[in-house]
Amino acid sequence: MKERFRLDRRLSADTHLVCDLPLCRVLLMDDSRFLWIVLVPRRHGVTELFELASSDRARLMDEIDRSAKALKKLARADKINIGALGNKVAQLHIHVVARMKNDPAWPDPVWGHGAALAYEPSVRDGLTKTLRRVLSICAG
Amino acid sequence: MKERFRLDRRLSADTHLVCDLPLCRVLLMDDSRFLWIVLVPRRHGVTELFELASSDRARLMDEIDRSAKALKKLARADKINIGALGNKVAQLHIHVVARMKNDPAWPDPVWGHGAALAYEPSVRDGLTKTLRRVLSICAG
Repeated sequence: MKERFRLDRRLSADTHLVCDLPLCRVLLMDDSRFLWIVLVPRRHGVTELFELASSDRARLMDEIDRSAKALKKLARADKINIGALGNKVAQLHIHVVARMKNDPAWPDPVWGHGAALAYEPSVRDGLTKTLRRVLSICAG
Repeated sequence: MKERFRLDRRLSADTHLVCDLPLCRVLLMDDSRFLWIVLVPRRHGVTELFELASSDRARLMDEIDRSAKALKKLARADKINIGALGNKVAQLHIHVVARMKNDPAWPDPVWGHGAALAYEPSVRDGLTKTLRRVLSICAG
């Protein structure tokens, strides 16, 4: 029997659910310093990009593309940063981050840069709703 | 007239040419602390992934996939890190890095981690040759 996708506990603890795209679960990183989402392919036991089926890789590229465009537009970002690291959390996940020239980490990467600053719940709820709309094909 | 691709000066200064894949120029980062290559789509004036044509994005995903597999095999890497940042160098470029649990930056990202340690020329030449072979469809 095919094992079911389960979101890694640490990813779950650090984020809020935005929506599901055809392949990926979209999560908002709970760090108000950056507009930062995480895409997690809903596949069991995958840690490297090349472990995805070719059709899933194509879907992933589409969803990264869609997410990057959405964040660029929403934040009027100076640059979009995209990263698949996974040195701490093995489950394959892709960071898509809107970077601004005046953000606290610029021009360095956001990973490992100081402590996260959680969103106010109302701001977070508004933002996840907006993201859901901007990502448009998201269900719900 | 379509403008010709020219490699960014900083990327050129920090790396050595490995080969050209169908879309990307493959470069070896001159930092012997990590097995680290950079893929640069040979397209003029592109800074974000979503500025690539859809066919080029598909090609890019194939070439990232091929590179990640090659580095995994060559280094027996614990994890492959993939990143498109571009906060310092605007020209679109994708880092593909073989990470080892005993490398000097683990588990943090390699970007911005201390000073690069240049390769001995003979080691570098051997490595670029090996990479060319492992990436197999590379010309030359």
